[in-house]
Amino acid sequence: MIRSLYFLPGNSIQKDLPPEKFPELIQNPQGVLWVDFISEPPETSLPILQGFKFHPLAIDDALQETHVPRLDDWGNYLYIVFNYMVVKKDGEGWESYVDELDIFLGQNYIVTHHDERITAIEETWISCDRDPRTLREGADHLLYKIADFLITEYMPIVEKIDDAIDQIEDQLFERPSPRTLEQLFALKRVLLAMRRIVLPQREVMNKLARDDFQVVDPKDRIFFRDLYDHLVRLHDLNESLRDLVGGVLDTYLSVVNNRMNEIMKTLTVITVLFMPLTFVTGFFGMNFFEPLGLMKGWTSNPAFDIVLAITILLPFGMYLWMRRRTWV
Amino acid sequence: MIRSLYFLPGNSIQKDLPPEKFPELIQNPQGVLWVDFISEPPETSLPILQGFKFHPLAIDDALQETHVPRLDDWGNYLYIVFNYMVVKKDGEGWESYVDELDIFLGQNYIVTHHDERITAIEETWISCDRDPRTLREGADHLLYKIADFLITEYMPIVEKIDDAIDQIEDQLFERPSPRTLEQLFALKRVLLAMRRIVLPQREVMNKLARDDFQVVDPKDRIFFRDLYDHLVRLHDLNESLRDLVGGVLDTYLSVVNNRMNEIMKTLTVITVLFMPLTFVTGFFGMNFFEPLGLMKGWTSNPAFDIVLAITILLPFGMYLWMRRRTWV
Amino acid sequence: MIRSLYFLPGNSIQKDLPPEKFPELIQNPQGVLWVDFISEPPETSLPILQGFKFHPLAIDDALQETHVPRLDDWGNYLYIVFNYMVVKKDGEGWESYVDELDIFLGQNYIVTHHDERITAIEETWISCDRDPRTLREGADHLLYKIADFLITEYMPIVEKIDDAIDQIEDQLFERPSPRTLEQLFALKRVLLAMRRIVLPQREVMNKLARDDFQVVDPKDRIFFRDLYDHLVRLHDLNESLRDLVGGVLDTYLSVVNNRMNEIMKTLTVITVLFMPLTFVTGFFGMNFFEPLGLMKGWTSNPAFDIVLAITILLPFGMYLWMRRRTWV
Amino acid sequence: MIRSLYFLPGNSIQKDLPPEKFPELIQNPQGVLWVDFISEPPETSLPILQGFKFHPLAIDDALQETHVPRLDDWGNYLYIVFNYMVVKKDGEGWESYVDELDIFLGQNYIVTHHDERITAIEETWISCDRDPRTLREGADHLLYKIADFLITEYMPIVEKIDDAIDQIEDQLFERPSPRTLEQLFALKRVLLAMRRIVLPQREVMNKLARDDFQVVDPKDRIFFRDLYDHLVRLHDLNESLRDLVGGVLDTYLSVVNNRMNEIMKTLTVITVLFMPLTFVTGFFGMNFFEPLGLMKGWTSNPAFDIVLAITILLPFGMYLWMRRRTWV
Amino acid sequence: MIRSLYFLPGNSIQKDLPPEKFPELIQNPQGVLWVDFISEPPETSLPILQGFKFHPLAIDDALQETHVPRLDDWGNYLYIVFNYMVVKKDGEGWESYVDELDIFLGQNYIVTHHDERITAIEETWISCDRDPRTLREGADHLLYKIADFLITEYMPIVEKIDDAIDQIEDQLFERPSPRTLEQLFALKRVLLAMRRIVLPQREVMNKLARDDFQVVDPKDRIFFRDLYDHLVRLHDLNESLRDLVGGVLDTYLSVVNNRMNEIMKTLTVITVLFMPLTFVTGFFGMNFFEPLGLMKGWTSNPAFDIVLAITILLPFGMYLWMRRRTWV
Repeated sequence: MIRSLYFLPGNSIQKDLPPEKFPELIQNPQGVLWVDFISEPPETSLPILQGFKFHPLAIDDALQETHVPRLDDWGNYLYIVFNYMVVKKDGEGWESYVDELDIFLGQNYIVTHHDERITAIEETWISCDRDPRTLREGADHLLYKIADFLITEYMPIVEKIDDAIDQIEDQLFERPSPRTLEQLFALKRVLLAMRRIVLPQREVMNKLARDDFQVVDPKDRIFFRDLYDHLVRLHDLNESLRDLVGGVLDTYLSVVNNRMNEIMKTLTVITVLFMPLTFVTGFFGMNFFEPLGLMKGWTSNPAFDIVLAITILLPFGMYLWMRRRTWV
Repeated sequence: MIRSLYFLPGNSIQKDLPPEKFPELIQNPQGVLWVDFISEPPETSLPILQGFKFHPLAIDDALQETHVPRLDDWGNYLYIVFNYMVVKKDGEGWESYVDELDIFLGQNYIVTHHDERITAIEETWISCDRDPRTLREGADHLLYKIADFLITEYMPIVEKIDDAIDQIEDQLFERPSPRTLEQLFALKRVLLAMRRIVLPQREVMNKLARDDFQVVDPKDRIFFRDLYDHLVRLHDLNESLRDLVGGVLDTYLSVVNNRMNEIMKTLTVITVLFMPLTFVTGFFGMNFFEPLGLMKGWTSNPAFDIVLAITILLPFGMYLWMRRRTWV
Repeated sequence: MIRSLYFLPGNSIQKDLPPEKFPELIQNPQGVLWVDFISEPPETSLPILQGFKFHPLAIDDALQETHVPRLDDWGNYLYIVFNYMVVKKDGEGWESYVDELDIFLGQNYIVTHHDERITAIEETWISCDRDPRTLREGADHLLYKIADFLITEYMPIVEKIDDAIDQIEDQLFERPSPRTLEQLFALKRVLLAMRRIVLPQREVMNKLARDDFQVVDPKDRIFFRDLYDHLVRLHDLNESLRDLVGGVLDTYLSVVNNRMNEIMKTLTVITVLFMPLTFVTGFFGMNFFEPLGLMKGWTSNPAFDIVLAITILLPFGMYLWMRRRTWV
Repeated sequence: MIRSLYFLPGNSIQKDLPPEKFPELIQNPQGVLWVDFISEPPETSLPILQGFKFHPLAIDDALQETHVPRLDDWGNYLYIVFNYMVVKKDGEGWESYVDELDIFLGQNYIVTHHDERITAIEETWISCDRDPRTLREGADHLLYKIADFLITEYMPIVEKIDDAIDQIEDQLFERPSPRTLEQLFALKRVLLAMRRIVLPQREVMNKLARDDFQVVDPKDRIFFRDLYDHLVRLHDLNESLRDLVGGVLDTYLSVVNNRMNEIMKTLTVITVLFMPLTFVTGFFGMNFFEPLGLMKGWTSNPAFDIVLAITILLPFGMYLWMRRRTWV
Repeated sequence: MIRSLYFLPGNSIQKDLPPEKFPELIQNPQGVLWVDFISEPPETSLPILQGFKFHPLAIDDALQETHVPRLDDWGNYLYIVFNYMVVKKDGEGWESYVDELDIFLGQNYIVTHHDERITAIEETWISCDRDPRTLREGADHLLYKIADFLITEYMPIVEKIDDAIDQIEDQLFERPSPRTLEQLFALKRVLLAMRRIVLPQREVMNKLARDDFQVVDPKDRIFFRDLYDHLVRLHDLNESLRDLVGGVLDTYLSVVNNRMNEIMKTLTVITVLFMPLTFVTGFFGMNFFEPLGLMKGWTSNPAFDIVLAITILLPFGMYLWMRRRTWV
């Protein structure tokens, strides 16, 4: 789907203009044009983008491939790639995927191209529609708006993850289960994926805040600087969360290990207590000591008292020995 | 709560001036004004901060979000974020959290904004109140004072952690328990959190000591250099402590592992000693050797002597074999 | 095998010219010459390369040794080393090896030297043969073509590996086997090998895109920049895949560990349930309690009822105890 | 304790001058003054140091706190912090601590301040006392002397550690004990502590060798360069030793693990051999097969032969099966 | 042993000249002098080196200590330290040590000093002896020759290690033994040691290839550049080999772990199968069921049939349960 917004100061906003008029519209430095491609096939996008006279390589990048966030300066326009992340909590598991938003930013126009509806784009679109002043600030301010919405959306994800870690930590000592581990690995994966797009996105913002671009008004740089700071903080939060996940993982492993040790200890204690006794009972179960046999003395009353004493005292002695070794 | 101090050389200190007068007061380059916001809601803080003509983005940062330590140069004022850490030893566990202190430093005023009472701020306030000379040195010296108190407070924390590590190390070899591990993880977390705020705080101090700011007197840079050195040392101590915790963790794991090996060894030794004997006694317990049965020879006196010899010599032989393998 | 292509604008393409004519042909700045050595022994390659007046050290490098990707600027020609990777899925295992493509790039000629047929070279050769326009763009554009084909070939490898990881992940929870681990290690090795050649290859592209070489047309740099971006993305994908493999490895280990714990738990539960019972039965199997013996009371009916109660209640009690410890 | 040396060319050395005369003495650019504070309380040190007109912050650093090695340039004097390490082999364990040596280096004086007697200082003192020529070279050469002695003292420590590692390695395969591990951890700790002071010390030397200081004669820089190289080498040795310790640790863990595996294998082999046999003997020990019972056939001679065959062949078969699995 | 070569164009080579003549010979810029010290004691080396007017610190470094590879520029001569590595395969183990070759390179002379005969030196010496042209190229070319031989010698070591890894990998799955581990650790150690000398050696070559030294002919830099590339490749190979060793280690550990799991599984299966049966047989072995006792019903024929059924069906059921859990 292709949609467009055109604003000329003094006029009301025009919507969904025919693509053929775009090249003509951008000749007027007063107006601001926003063209938005949503899951539009390359065949129909290509000629329109060519109408803007973008470099074939840049168009190729926008239409065909996925990239990490980056910024290419082509002189009278910028080609920018942003990534956005969708994180869904699916039962106990976590699903996340990363997709791409391609932006061409000119002096008086912005072209956005993406494969599915993005909340950040929708919200900016609606706010432009509602209040044309947003457009009056120029195309670069529109870029700021979009990027701002995009970055703001990370916060709830970060908070959801934070909550999830807290929850896991609470139930860790009660009943550690393999599912806990799976959840932790899933969280780790989400955080790693987020880190991989936050870092280059930060660099893009840094460039927009620092470098001198033909299409970015120097007085707007402070806004990109602010977004840069947001991303610095986001990266920092991400690091903290990864540390937390790492800590919970360590704790999980130590809890599981302790339980395992407990179990092996119990196995050993039981074996140590009963194996010798089983031998003793087995010994007196041998047919040498038959009532009609030759060794009646072995099954006499005093012998039984000794055996009985052994079966009672041996475990007791063993227990003391194990206690001294702090096993029990 | 909002409170303020105003000092004009020759006059005595004025306290708790009405916020409306702040913009007028800071016009006089001779005076020094300190405004302190303590857990003041954004609604009331905002207009006062706007009275200072701070950039909206800077005010936003101060009022709404938490940041890592940083310094923004806005020309005729600096926006500085410091972090402080509160560490409480709660029974066996450790609780720690990090909060933020926002500072606006102008030529002749300082504005501090924080969510709860901070010891460093209180102590500076009291010393200003008691001795106006502190204010005579200018607003940047006041910043130094606050930062100095803030950094000094890390030392007792570091020492408490050091003591805790020592204590754990002592009881490690006696009776290692899962709680030891939990405590170590908690200490590690605290140290990691401290490291994350000391590092950027150090960078802020470095900037104050090196860069040329309009509102910092060049001859005061040496003081910030000193604080920078304190933070370098603190970072170094932190690294040492983390190494120590790492070492204690390694030792703990090896102690636990050794105990586990001991336990498994005992299990094996007992099994190896008694299983064959149990078989022997079981063998002669079979009903083939009934007194009235056919195989009386098997339960004759010499046979018993042999079996008795086996039950005594077999464990002995096993013991020697295990000794040669250095198991026992 | 040595083969050659020569294109002089206005003439048709000449093929397989005698090597003696090469030095003469490259005198004409209009023409474009491509000489391709395929698994040609050094003895025959050497004099031909010397005919181009390449530096002996550069010829040595091309003929005798394998290198990591790199670019040497020798003024009027460049010596470039590319690596290509062949990955074969061999049953469950993965075979991969890396080989080298040496390229001499002059103003109007390109010399390629490799030990076996490379798809990228073949495809460029065929497209040159079919459409002489490719040659018209100059020798540096030919280099771009070859590098483009070379880099494009990594994508299917990356996808195959991605599929393999998915497949392993699916069967992980059902029946983890040592072969899974072997496969994961093999994948890791392939990814590591790929990383090692992608990184320096990227640097070569960066140089071609940034630096000012006598033999590279400045307007062609944008193409090498594009290849550079491809390699950046490839490197990024490689990192993601390695993270994925790492995650699957962690999961595998935790699954195996859980199964092991399950097994040990079962061992312990069975031992704990039956060892005491075996002792009890052994006790009453001793020959003290012979029907004709002295202690008839021990084998009376009420005693039996007690023993029966023990054999039923003991395991039940044990089970409750273990349940409280969340073992079962 | 405060002691001092003063040398004026042409005069003999003067010792233990009254502190009041120091400020006057250092006015004469010809003389060289060395003042040494040994575990002198701050109260008495302070006024003397103030007499030299050192900056209050520098004096503070010298008197109150411990630092990592560093160098501060205060124009007409340098403030230098060196660390020295004391390593004691205490039975099987290793004790080490790090202390600080503060130095003020002026054009014609050197002030050293430390908490306990340091061999390096003593030796330099004695050699100055014995041979005044050492003083004739100037205060910066005296600094070189002290640093040289200080650095030379690391070598025996390194060698002692090297020997200790060798010794541990030798006894590793015979009888690995938990104490081995403790010793290794102790060595690792010592090496880590040494590394932490060698690295910044190296940087101090680098500065003295490279930078242009008012109080260091350019022609003496070559000596500090030499000390820098010593520290580079020391750092390198430290790395090697840490690698060695790491290797021995790996070996230890694998040796212990192998022994554990051996033990578990024995446990399993014994259980696998005897458990089935115990069942067989138990089976024929049941009272169904009483001589007066109903199933006499089960205890007949041929049955016994079969049971006897089983008790002999079963272990044998098991052994072959385990052999095929390369367990025994 | 001291030996020397002197070549003056037009004259034949002179050998083993008296050391007293060296200072005089190097006055003639036409000639080339090579002095080689082989395990010569410092007492005799010192005066000769002093004759060349080398700086005392440089002489000290050459005579007394071992260093990492490095290059010192002393203006009219260079002091260079190379390291060489001797690796011996000693049975299953690997022995390696690193020694030092000190070189002084002047405009028209080279002085080499080492503790034992080095193949690289011998080969250069012989080739000089045989063909005086080598000397005609100047002293810096001689340095190149020696360094070239030195670096070439690493290749066979690398190949030997490669073969060893292959061999280990092959026998890994058949019969993993602790010796395999020892061998892997030894290989790792050798590779680490090699890495530690290749890296700084590379830097020395880089300096010789890039920097402007008085005693190195600029047109010879290309040769040192070539050696630099060799070392880059060597470092790369080293990294690959270390990755391989790491991979084999991981595989070894997983193979051993799998075997261990197998063993524990067997232990558990056997215990699970036979413990309940042993209880059953023990139960009916109790003397309650004496033929003359009171509970004849328990030893009647139908009871026996049930017990028989249990002893057959119980293991069968257990087996099915374990199969469902994919244990067997």
